[in-house]
Amino acid sequence: MNRPDNPPIDPALDAYLHSAEAQLLSELCDWLRIPSVSTLPQHKEDIERAAGWLARKMTAVGLENVELIRSGGHPIVYADWLHAGSDAPTLLVYGHYDVQPADPLEQWTSPPFEPTVRGDDLVARGASDDKGQLFAHVAAVQALLATSGSLPVNVKFVVEGEEEDGSQALMDYVPAAVEKLAADACLISDTHMLSPQQPLIIYGLRGMWGGEITVRGPARDLHSGMFGGAVHNPNQALCELLARLHDEEGRVTVPGFYDRVEPLSEQERAALARVPYDDETLLKESGAPAAWGEAGFTVTERIGARPTLEINGMWGGFTGEGFKTVIPAEAQAKVSCRLVPDQDSAAIGPMIERFLAEIAPPTVEVSVRTRVHAPATVVPLDVPEIGAASRAFKRVFGADPVFSREGGSIPVATVFQETLDIPILLMGLGLPDDNLHAPNEKLHLPNHFRGVRVGIALMEELNIA
Amino acid sequence: MNRPDNPPIDPALDAYLHSAEAQLLSELCDWLRIPSVSTLPQHKEDIERAAGWLARKMTAVGLENVELIRSGGHPIVYADWLHAGSDAPTLLVYGHYDVQPADPLEQWTSPPFEPTVRGDDLVARGASDDKGQLFAHVAAVQALLATSGSLPVNVKFVVEGEEEDGSQALMDYVPAAVEKLAADACLISDTHMLSPQQPLIIYGLRGMWGGEITVRGPARDLHSGMFGGAVHNPNQALCELLARLHDEEGRVTVPGFYDRVEPLSEQERAALARVPYDDETLLKESGAPAAWGEAGFTVTERIGARPTLEINGMWGGFTGEGFKTVIPAEAQAKVSCRLVPDQDSAAIGPMIERFLAEIAPPTVEVSVRTRVHAPATVVPLDVPEIGAASRAFKRVFGADPVFSREGGSIPVATVFQETLDIPILLMGLGLPDDNLHAPNEKLHLPNHFRGVRVGIALMEELNIA
Repeated sequence: MNRPDNPPIDPALDAYLHSAEAQLLSELCDWLRIPSVSTLPQHKEDIERAAGWLARKMTAVGLENVELIRSGGHPIVYADWLHAGSDAPTLLVYGHYDVQPADPLEQWTSPPFEPTVRGDDLVARGASDDKGQLFAHVAAVQALLATSGSLPVNVKFVVEGEEEDGSQALMDYVPAAVEKLAADACLISDTHMLSPQQPLIIYGLRGMWGGEITVRGPARDLHSGMFGGAVHNPNQALCELLARLHDEEGRVTVPGFYDRVEPLSEQERAALARVPYDDETLLKESGAPAAWGEAGFTVTERIGARPTLEINGMWGGFTGEGFKTVIPAEAQAKVSCRLVPDQDSAAIGPMIERFLAEIAPPTVEVSVRTRVHAPATVVPLDVPEIGAASRAFKRVFGADPVFSREGGSIPVATVFQETLDIPILLMGLGLPDDNLHAPNEKLHLPNHFRGVRVGIALMEELNIA
Repeated sequence: MNRPDNPPIDPALDAYLHSAEAQLLSELCDWLRIPSVSTLPQHKEDIERAAGWLARKMTAVGLENVELIRSGGHPIVYADWLHAGSDAPTLLVYGHYDVQPADPLEQWTSPPFEPTVRGDDLVARGASDDKGQLFAHVAAVQALLATSGSLPVNVKFVVEGEEEDGSQALMDYVPAAVEKLAADACLISDTHMLSPQQPLIIYGLRGMWGGEITVRGPARDLHSGMFGGAVHNPNQALCELLARLHDEEGRVTVPGFYDRVEPLSEQERAALARVPYDDETLLKESGAPAAWGEAGFTVTERIGARPTLEINGMWGGFTGEGFKTVIPAEAQAKVSCRLVPDQDSAAIGPMIERFLAEIAPPTVEVSVRTRVHAPATVVPLDVPEIGAASRAFKRVFGADPVFSREGGSIPVATVFQETLDIPILLMGLGLPDDNLHAPNEKLHLPNHFRGVRVGIALMEELNIA
């Protein structure tokens, strides 16, 4: 690892953090023990507990006006510290305290909600996405207030509990709270670095459409010996339809899907080509037998700069142990699209529905239900806050960040950028192999504590930006 | 309904059955309460209880040499009555006491293992397939022995507990027990009539191959935002592969699949054309929006005389409530084929595996695992036992039976016919809308008690055949 020439942060702050490390880790584990899965109704109480835990921690570190905002959906946790003076800039820190479901449970090497330290890693659902990354910034505030009693900038935290379920409550809330949330930049640590040595600033996030496709055939489940070969099996019909959503070159076939997608400029392709990520890296990280994707685009372009359509789940008929010779009445798939700038996220569901209606045979009925949609975001790279973010990373990691678009979606990022008219600083503290949304999610602890220092450095750099 | 000119059975027997009806129904309900699902390991004890229940009932009606044969797998229940004399023919009665799994439970209007009488129907898993149909023949023996102390023919019962799981134990047992099971005909009531007025004798049963197809991609579940569009999603790959197992005209595309399938003769097509079953009947029974199937064949031919390939179940990725933007490490399907005479059931699995290996892209790995296979059966129509079966149906229902091939498979039927060298009498007592293998399976009670009389009439007719 490149070592910066000068210590990244003030020695007193650094000493404070070293002494507080064990206590901070123990607190983060307490938070991770709460299974705040936003998409599963049975975890509603855990969501409340996780929000309450964060509010108490924020109060404890010296943040003020701590509040649980109940504007529909899961509560939004707000807190601020506004004593840096009216000339000092204001940083809005966004994060989410909800986590993905933990299944398949049997693939976890330790229980998902019993945080376990294994070498340099802390293994738990939410360790990286996003409790751990958000916690780093709370710890940064704690260190500054504990050692100096003040922060270099004004700070506002806004932390939601349904990022994994579409962010609807926060997206509804932001336009109604423009004054309260007013700031000069929005810091989001919910992405990743390229490696423990190489920071990354994401300047583009894909948008998203997510929904369910249902194919209905017979009125009830049928015996495949008595009706097989004479009615169209909804499992088969669903396969036939889903197989037609991509062509042989990996392109999405839904008419209109690419209509508003801007071709990549030569400059942008050149910038993306500098990202040290290729087919080999992809295969190593994913364990896939071979690369796949839209012809004519590199892996970095496919992931960050092109729209995609993925079948996240599908099921139909008998899926238990043993055998049941059935033709099911229906089969279903959960499908999501990642969208790039200018694609209209609200139009995707109807587009897919029209296409499926057009290609579906008369032997089945097909329906599409939209569950979530949000447009893509691109951050202008020439604003001073991006410069501050770069310097903060360089100070702590000793390396200039790489700039890239990212494949993931943070639905609320666009809302912050457009409604509050401020740049989004997507400064990921996670790593590519953090197993987000998968078994054995983990947080690389050395990076986590460097991340605390990045938060401190960013506040300092913003004050001189 | 056509009424026979003469009472179908002796008035004393008829009176006995009327007086015993309530008690017989109550006993059948006791048996149906035992959830003897053979494919689910957690029901192993229920399987034992169901076998024990039958053995006790057989003993109670006067059958002898009652025995639970444990030759591997679930026990086979054997019983006989051999006092009709060495000149009298011997009838082997086959049935099965295991049942299909009951899911989806929420679609049952009453719990599957709490038998419920609704109008003329008894609703329960196994009511028709096959506990109810087998019980009719036990009741026939009971009525004859209770009123006259003897049977017109020698009778042997052989009842297995894993018909829904491939009949392996019985198929292994029969060749080793040729002498013990020696008989002149084998009665199997595990099919259906065309309507409560129209009996049907099945002279052809399709064979079967059943197995699992697994598509593996990445080494673990991946975040679809970080890897989507750059690895081949196993859900999508499975759909693409399964969609290619049929062509646009409903034909199975697996090379070699039809190689040993004999073309239908003009006579056979003419006979099948006389079966009063068409697209309209199919749509009414199934509730499917439109008919489907192999081009160039009628619905009766598709169901009974042509081989098929069906996806009985498939799953991959996140299938719970809510949303999880995942690319799964693998996706699976349970597939079964119905086979016609001369197809080699053992060759089907390797054929499918070869074809999938050939068409699978390098981006995924595909494997096929065979779970069960059994060849098809055709019964010669010119044997005297078929004549006796026809007359027995005619006596009770007043109508000559229709002869047809059937879509279902009774894996052990071929073994009886070939190993014991006796004709199989496939005299179904169920109805086409019995919801076999589906929620709300039912037994039409008037038919059931006529079925008891058919059993009695068959024994009498066999004695003069």
